[in-house]
Amino acid sequence: MLPEEALRTAQEEMLDYRGTGMSVMEMSHRSDVFNDIIKGAEALLREIMDIPRNYRVLFLQGGASTQFAMVPLNLFRRSRRADYVVTGSWAKKAVAEAKRYGDISIVASSEDTNFTSIPPLDSIRFSDNADYVHITTNNTIYGTRFPSIPDTGNVPLVADMSSNILSEVYDVSRFGIIYAGAQKNIGPAGLTIVIIREDLIGHALHIAPTMLNYKTHADKDSLFNTPPCFAIYIAKLTFEWVKKQGGVPEIEKRNREKAGMLYELLDTSDMFSGTADRASRSLMNVTFTLPSDDLTRICVEQASQEGLVTLKGHRSVGGLRASIYNAMPVEGVRKLVAFLREFERKNG
Amino acid sequence: MLPEEALRTAQEEMLDYRGTGMSVMEMSHRSDVFNDIIKGAEALLREIMDIPRNYRVLFLQGGASTQFAMVPLNLFRRSRRADYVVTGSWAKKAVAEAKRYGDISIVASSEDTNFTSIPPLDSIRFSDNADYVHITTNNTIYGTRFPSIPDTGNVPLVADMSSNILSEVYDVSRFGIIYAGAQKNIGPAGLTIVIIREDLIGHALHIAPTMLNYKTHADKDSLFNTPPCFAIYIAKLTFEWVKKQGGVPEIEKRNREKAGMLYELLDTSDMFSGTADRASRSLMNVTFTLPSDDLTRICVEQASQEGLVTLKGHRSVGGLRASIYNAMPVEGVRKLVAFLREFERKNG
Repeated sequence: MLPEEALRTAQEEMLDYRGTGMSVMEMSHRSDVFNDIIKGAEALLREIMDIPRNYRVLFLQGGASTQFAMVPLNLFRRSRRADYVVTGSWAKKAVAEAKRYGDISIVASSEDTNFTSIPPLDSIRFSDNADYVHITTNNTIYGTRFPSIPDTGNVPLVADMSSNILSEVYDVSRFGIIYAGAQKNIGPAGLTIVIIREDLIGHALHIAPTMLNYKTHADKDSLFNTPPCFAIYIAKLTFEWVKKQGGVPEIEKRNREKAGMLYELLDTSDMFSGTADRASRSLMNVTFTLPSDDLTRICVEQASQEGLVTLKGHRSVGGLRASIYNAMPVEGVRKLVAFLREFERKNG
Repeated sequence: MLPEEALRTAQEEMLDYRGTGMSVMEMSHRSDVFNDIIKGAEALLREIMDIPRNYRVLFLQGGASTQFAMVPLNLFRRSRRADYVVTGSWAKKAVAEAKRYGDISIVASSEDTNFTSIPPLDSIRFSDNADYVHITTNNTIYGTRFPSIPDTGNVPLVADMSSNILSEVYDVSRFGIIYAGAQKNIGPAGLTIVIIREDLIGHALHIAPTMLNYKTHADKDSLFNTPPCFAIYIAKLTFEWVKKQGGVPEIEKRNREKAGMLYELLDTSDMFSGTADRASRSLMNVTFTLPSDDLTRICVEQASQEGLVTLKGHRSVGGLRASIYNAMPVEGVRKLVAFLREFERKNG
């Protein structure tokens, strides 16, 4: 879901971006007008995430799946060892890819409870000599989120924030790399945002393809080759929207309100049970179950008729999942909660 | 430049794709409605390029620059040797990347004449044991194009068609791989089309990142991870437009007419000189010079005032360049030719 305002602007400017007579899709990425777009997008993201000056912002392609390779190919320098906290299937995929290039220690995992929680951070013993530590801050399938960020000392912390970037305030200085596919809270699929501390750039393994070397893109301000111009333009519109809403603190407040309404329902309902541990609950994806498969199916169907689509849980966990990304208005969640209460009243 | 028709449809459907109530940018790539888009795009491309059944069509990210690595990482199997024909700076970049993974022979190059021609194909001696041969069918900066396709026997021929895919009829069965960044003749930047013969899939080097292994994407019908959905949607609209125009044969006819008008001007003018050898002239990019830098500058400026933008040649060759991709109408070229004739009359 994207902010309607951003989509309307994109619609208006589709054939003629601000009097240039052409679509953003037709512009040269070397033109002054596109330069203003990409520089503007970066400036806005720096402002709304309060990104320190010693971090670079890169606009890349290939999604988180490409980052799963790019992180080890760029950060394996000394020990070729890294620590991963495994909190879902995306983290597992990240581990599988990193293992192809070095030694990976899974320092904590919640797989034995089907990822319904984030492992307690104070019990994690990180390796002495890891080149980096990797976490997935939000886990869409299971509806979990790191309640706090682990302290990894001098070892760079790498975070896959694909599903909750810009949803709450994060202190960027605590991370070595933050990466995120754009398609949840930022813009269309096909754009990947990477925020990387400068000292981590320039040490890629010699086998790293040029396009998978952060230095390639940092040296050319993300214009080494043609970037996904239109997606960057939509991202800029979304960043503008976030700023206009009051910035990430205000977005976080709304997200807590939205998630709070759903969790309150789960905690007071006899029919719906939340699947994630309370301390690990996501602000983006609220997962819950009904007493039977039949009721689950009927609930999904009726919700769909009310225009509340994509409520079906991921096939690997079943149940229901309400994804309430930034662009979902409070009103939309209120409508969903009302529907669920009514569903319980009728079928309880 | 994109077909105006495609842009208008995208504009109309921006907030509500065919009654779904959502933008293509908001759809799940696993939804039925997006499945229809990507399957429809593939079917159309197969039809308009007459792609044989033993070829796969992949919708990827990362541009030609990523293919520069992906080709050697997937095709180096036996000798780890490949032959490259170097006809411009993009071919040189492809060579530089491939060299990182094996032995590259430059079997022909026109660099000594600043790439103003395609080397004569009948004089090329290909290696006995190359894993593949690589060419760049059209060279935007220099305005050249392979007048015919070399016969490489049983050695797979790989073609970077980024700047002239769908501009003329190619016999796909003569290639092992055709790849193209979408941004010239297909759609927005951020989408890469790969057409690959099935037997070339599944032999990637062990160091190849999962996302840079053709098999990863072939096995999942380009849905291994979230694809650039919106760019694929625009590509589908462009393929529909090509079909409606009469297919690639009709597009080729128009392109020959468009290029012919410009080359006729160059051949009859005392002021403008074509830079590419006649036998190697491009149908997409017409490059030419004026007698002085001052006249060149004035010509670019006056053209720009007439709405004929981006006529300035690439900084590495100077002069002027008219890029007349598929979506440029015959009328647009006629206007350009008239402007140039008038410019010569006034300043000649």
